[in-house]
Amino acid sequence: MATLTRPHHQSHLFTNLSLKPKPKPAHFSPSRIKMSLQETAPSVAIVGVTGAVGQEFLSVLTDRNFPYRSIKMLASKRSAGKQQTFEGKNYTIEELTAESFDGVDIALFSAGGSISKEFGPIAVEKGCVVVDNSSAFRMVDGVPLVIPEVNGDAMSGIKLGGKGGLIANPNCSTIICLMAATPLHRHAKVKRMVVSTYQAASGAGAAAMEELELQTREVLEGKPPTCKIFSQQYAFNLFSHNAPVQSNGYNEEEMKLVKETRKIWNNMDVKVTATCIRVPVMRAHAESVNLQFEKPLDEDTAREILKNAPGLVVIDDRASNHFPTPLEVSNKDDVAVGRIRQDLSQEGNHGLDIFVCGDQIRKGAALNAVQIAELLL
Amino acid sequence: MATLTRPHHQSHLFTNLSLKPKPKPAHFSPSRIKMSLQETAPSVAIVGVTGAVGQEFLSVLTDRNFPYRSIKMLASKRSAGKQQTFEGKNYTIEELTAESFDGVDIALFSAGGSISKEFGPIAVEKGCVVVDNSSAFRMVDGVPLVIPEVNGDAMSGIKLGGKGGLIANPNCSTIICLMAATPLHRHAKVKRMVVSTYQAASGAGAAAMEELELQTREVLEGKPPTCKIFSQQYAFNLFSHNAPVQSNGYNEEEMKLVKETRKIWNNMDVKVTATCIRVPVMRAHAESVNLQFEKPLDEDTAREILKNAPGLVVIDDRASNHFPTPLEVSNKDDVAVGRIRQDLSQEGNHGLDIFVCGDQIRKGAALNAVQIAELLL
Repeated sequence: MATLTRPHHQSHLFTNLSLKPKPKPAHFSPSRIKMSLQETAPSVAIVGVTGAVGQEFLSVLTDRNFPYRSIKMLASKRSAGKQQTFEGKNYTIEELTAESFDGVDIALFSAGGSISKEFGPIAVEKGCVVVDNSSAFRMVDGVPLVIPEVNGDAMSGIKLGGKGGLIANPNCSTIICLMAATPLHRHAKVKRMVVSTYQAASGAGAAAMEELELQTREVLEGKPPTCKIFSQQYAFNLFSHNAPVQSNGYNEEEMKLVKETRKIWNNMDVKVTATCIRVPVMRAHAESVNLQFEKPLDEDTAREILKNAPGLVVIDDRASNHFPTPLEVSNKDDVAVGRIRQDLSQEGNHGLDIFVCGDQIRKGAALNAVQIAELLL
Repeated sequence: MATLTRPHHQSHLFTNLSLKPKPKPAHFSPSRIKMSLQETAPSVAIVGVTGAVGQEFLSVLTDRNFPYRSIKMLASKRSAGKQQTFEGKNYTIEELTAESFDGVDIALFSAGGSISKEFGPIAVEKGCVVVDNSSAFRMVDGVPLVIPEVNGDAMSGIKLGGKGGLIANPNCSTIICLMAATPLHRHAKVKRMVVSTYQAASGAGAAAMEELELQTREVLEGKPPTCKIFSQQYAFNLFSHNAPVQSNGYNEEEMKLVKETRKIWNNMDVKVTATCIRVPVMRAHAESVNLQFEKPLDEDTAREILKNAPGLVVIDDRASNHFPTPLEVSNKDDVAVGRIRQDLSQEGNHGLDIFVCGDQIRKGAALNAVQIAELLL
């Protein structure tokens, strides 16, 4: 994928900043590859394989040694015929059509809402389980909206080899926020949550990451910045999230946090407000989260709860001022949480402030989808 | 000032991004210069003239046609003897000593807390009115902490030509937040405020701005970033504010917002919590502010209140997704507010979310101090 691999940036720092798939983990071994070839493993399709999330699907499948009988690389007509290397084999990218899903057990979709709306139901019709990364079906009644660590049980009605089904992957900001908020919610019940986000370029796709880099070079050279993906200068600047603003003044990104939280927690009473901001960071989001609880929860208990929560790492070193940063979680699976402290503005230990960072492409999208697929196995 | 003027960056974009003093405003004219030379005008001293804020003091004095009988450029021994051009004249920078304040009416201090603590009382002793940009005296009883648009009356006891006095300039984040929050507070009384900041490099001084630029070049070239001012990579990253973290888990920057708000509003009951984050932006801060009011306040009324507030500009165009950005307020006097909307998480119009941006060096420091000095005239 030309836009995401550039040989002239090989330092670990720049790699870490943005682009290359991370090295294979220690548990990756040829014997495990063999296992993945077994006849009982599912047939998998990747829809939108050329995109930033599509590429990350492949990386995560490998990292997690996801078993598969066969794998199909699907994309738009424009990309059909191109080659995609995966686990040492070359695959020809195929054009996505209604026939693409014949014999496919699991399809991981990340090709935008309109593709999901058109082809998701076709795939399900053919008995395929679709894990959809778009917003197309997230709020549809009966479609489970799943973060495996949070509400994996919500998809218990959907099985492989049956009549197919559709599972929605939540929005990246929601996943990253709820990975940290849920363990606390389970303990003390969140009444109200005020979220301010610091969102990376990657949320707008690989082209947006390219634009941030290009603009930064241009501004440093004293040139006007190229604005194609975003309508304004992004380098050394920040702006309200580019999602359309609704009549209530919230943009769609913010409303995802409000609505998806209610659905995932199966709690229509939880109050959420959010302000979503794009910052000039490449691929990991940060979120400042203020929590109001029904029951008291002191910060030491909260820290212990978070330390024991799956998929979460606590980085909370006050003495050396070391807390989560987007760079530190880039290309990492775990969401990081820190700045855990009793909210001074609330009485009786009924509030906490926390700061969360998570890789937007990984746990915010591809990893969460693959974890959903793993629950199906 | 070598670090802030570099001939190879002359595009308006890069200039706007960071560094050069803005062009003279239309009202700047020779006749006004003459007025400033009149005998009755005060004698002024700038303490810390070589710093980012010190330089901005000069720029603001010129822009606002501040009258002065004489002006002294004061700095550390290291800078003594260097030349400083101001309004067409050359001045020799003098070393700051106890004698520096003989005959000085107004001293604008921005040379760090320890310099203020040592020399502020000496200047006052000599009948000088000190406007101090450091945190040294902000929370001291009897020292007015002033944002002219908010609580100018708090300094009514201090006069020129009398027994001297000390007035503290609030912290940049507090000023920028309260410029927008105060008009709403006056109308509906703020009970609780949750603030998340997006703070620029300039808050850590000119060297931090240089480091952000240097690091960005290095990272783009695949080199390891130089970390001298900050302990970690700042380019394409963000991190919890570098101020020391207290035992309650809040860093000092956050506690300034908590405590200064109470003092400026003369209201010990207002509840404030804050999370302060450094983002890779040059010289203007942004803040996401969630407000809870005692009385109901609908968003249309709030918008009208903010439109009529001094020193504030409303940028709130939902249709074209145009809201305040740090770049847009850089080198500007006014603080910008937008994303004004009814907080969905509160009932009965008792809450609002707003997003505020302000130039950290200007209204966040130098401009506010010069406005305080103007109130003395």
